[in-house]
Amino acid sequence: MDRIYVETKDKKYPIYFEKNFGALKDAVRETGLEGRKLCIITDSNVGDIYADKFIESIKDCFNDICVYTFKAGENSKNLDTISDFYDFFMNNHVDRKTVVAGLGGGVCGDMAGFAASTYLRGIKFIQIPTSLLSQVDSSVGGKVGVDFKNSKNLIGSFYQPDFVYINLETLDTLPKREFSAGMAEVIKYGPITSREFFDYISANKEKISSLNKECLKEVIKMCCEIKADVVSKDERESGLREILNFGHTIGHAVESKMNFKLLHGECVALGMAAVMDICLKRGYVTQNDCYDLKNLLEFFGLKLSINGVSVEEIYSQMFLDKKVKNNKIGFVLINGFGKPFSTTDVSKDEILSAVNSILR
Amino acid sequence: MDRIYVETKDKKYPIYFEKNFGALKDAVRETGLEGRKLCIITDSNVGDIYADKFIESIKDCFNDICVYTFKAGENSKNLDTISDFYDFFMNNHVDRKTVVAGLGGGVCGDMAGFAASTYLRGIKFIQIPTSLLSQVDSSVGGKVGVDFKNSKNLIGSFYQPDFVYINLETLDTLPKREFSAGMAEVIKYGPITSREFFDYISANKEKISSLNKECLKEVIKMCCEIKADVVSKDERESGLREILNFGHTIGHAVESKMNFKLLHGECVALGMAAVMDICLKRGYVTQNDCYDLKNLLEFFGLKLSINGVSVEEIYSQMFLDKKVKNNKIGFVLINGFGKPFSTTDVSKDEILSAVNSILR
Repeated sequence: MDRIYVETKDKKYPIYFEKNFGALKDAVRETGLEGRKLCIITDSNVGDIYADKFIESIKDCFNDICVYTFKAGENSKNLDTISDFYDFFMNNHVDRKTVVAGLGGGVCGDMAGFAASTYLRGIKFIQIPTSLLSQVDSSVGGKVGVDFKNSKNLIGSFYQPDFVYINLETLDTLPKREFSAGMAEVIKYGPITSREFFDYISANKEKISSLNKECLKEVIKMCCEIKADVVSKDERESGLREILNFGHTIGHAVESKMNFKLLHGECVALGMAAVMDICLKRGYVTQNDCYDLKNLLEFFGLKLSINGVSVEEIYSQMFLDKKVKNNKIGFVLINGFGKPFSTTDVSKDEILSAVNSILR
Repeated sequence: MDRIYVETKDKKYPIYFEKNFGALKDAVRETGLEGRKLCIITDSNVGDIYADKFIESIKDCFNDICVYTFKAGENSKNLDTISDFYDFFMNNHVDRKTVVAGLGGGVCGDMAGFAASTYLRGIKFIQIPTSLLSQVDSSVGGKVGVDFKNSKNLIGSFYQPDFVYINLETLDTLPKREFSAGMAEVIKYGPITSREFFDYISANKEKISSLNKECLKEVIKMCCEIKADVVSKDERESGLREILNFGHTIGHAVESKMNFKLLHGECVALGMAAVMDICLKRGYVTQNDCYDLKNLLEFFGLKLSINGVSVEEIYSQMFLDKKVKNNKIGFVLINGFGKPFSTTDVSKDEILSAVNSILR
């Protein structure tokens, strides 16, 4: 089995990369989870397609299996749905030995993980991310939680799973728009880690786009390795981990201001395009760096400009982000590919100009 | 300042023992929390008496203070109240630097801690326990959480505070019945740690009962030391920590069956009396050990028998406890004072006879 390990202060666990659910049994046995009860949390989209296949592949490993399906979508990501999970846990006698599995995209993994982290003060948890975004981003790092009154991920905790199992086959049924949004986070790892990684993605863009599994496996694995490395050095985001937020400062503000009609990855693409404007004007990157990044984003169908919102609206929104401390907006800039750094020292003029560069 | 330290894998923090709020400033400074925003969570009973005094004593240490008061009582201990806290946090711009203070008894500390552990994935938290029970038990060890649909503490996490500040003066206004209930947990430390500790409590029972602060300080400090020692060796209750549940197996069942009309400590006293019956019949303890324990509990006003509930009802209830695994009931027995051990090997006959010994 192809795998990497994520190591945090308290825990070390594997991420498996496979082309089907065939090796799930081995994953369960390797991590010592067999012979327990399994409680699967999935959403109405993913559950319809994959729940049966998933269960078929692991039913011999567990002595009891129950499934809870919630309505797909970010609108479900709240404490009411978590209460429904708790209810289901109670009614199905979930106990301290039970394993909770999150089978789905980021919303599903974040919620299943949060419920597992708080039920009986924490029970076993495994992640089976089925979207590109969750495979390269949200399933690595242990951030779990829910939205609260329009604030994204306001409530949550850090809770590492016992393993993550990535089945690349699930990308075949992922809506194209969501695949593109996931690619924004994949491409993000270029500017923040190395030109080499970026060039690898560029060179293989056709294969990636046509869902070549061998190539996707390499790419997703590299992304997980990068994120696992960052998380192992800074699980609680007290410094280094912030670099993962490249493109997110302006991206988050756009996401909120557009009332979450754009996908997270789509907004990160916009945010990266905008922040490159700041880096370019400071002489940190070349005009070519900007073209290369934007071209690759556009190749994957990501739009780099929006309308219907003003520069001032986006600017004000940025102050409402949960990362704002003492009224200072934090940015991740790059001083060339692979040289990211955090700063709160970006002027209002720079921000306005950057935001303006993505408005039509 | 009089203090001890609690050390867990991730954290080391002090518990201060004082006779007023005078040293709070020093506690805040020592732990590096000054200059932040403070958000106080308290209940309607404690807040009325102590909120102003508390604020007066620390107002110079924080640049902003807000207070949220919830309705006192176990009925408030649920996710709805936690949502109210989150709302209050949002409206008062609680951010990652803010300190949440739980000023009150066990319910308040458990809920303030749970909210702090889940807001923005965890913010700073200090505990100011005002009841005897919370001073000797719930404020040490990091268990935070809420009840869910009549299941006590079903939802929660482990979250250690930045410090605990025990002001003995708050015991002067504690209802006598609650003081007695707290004494059940104090006395519990005798059987599970040493005859010496038990004899110390017996020898000083008059002073304790008359709320002699010097004596109470010694007693409470000893209890915190015992619990801190256990927790430092087994934070997540995978073994040793279970000994703290002496008297709790039958106690919890009584508590539920009596619809929480009896206080937790009152039920622990009943549970200890019952479990001593098992230990006596097995020849683990002497008739004198039983008399001594029961006499001391009764001295503090704790009743050792109940009516209105049947032995079968209590027995069935025991299987619904969240600590039951694979349908086996776990007990903590003692093989003489200071020699506790966990076992699931207690026969139905032994249990029925033990329960019968506390029914009138």
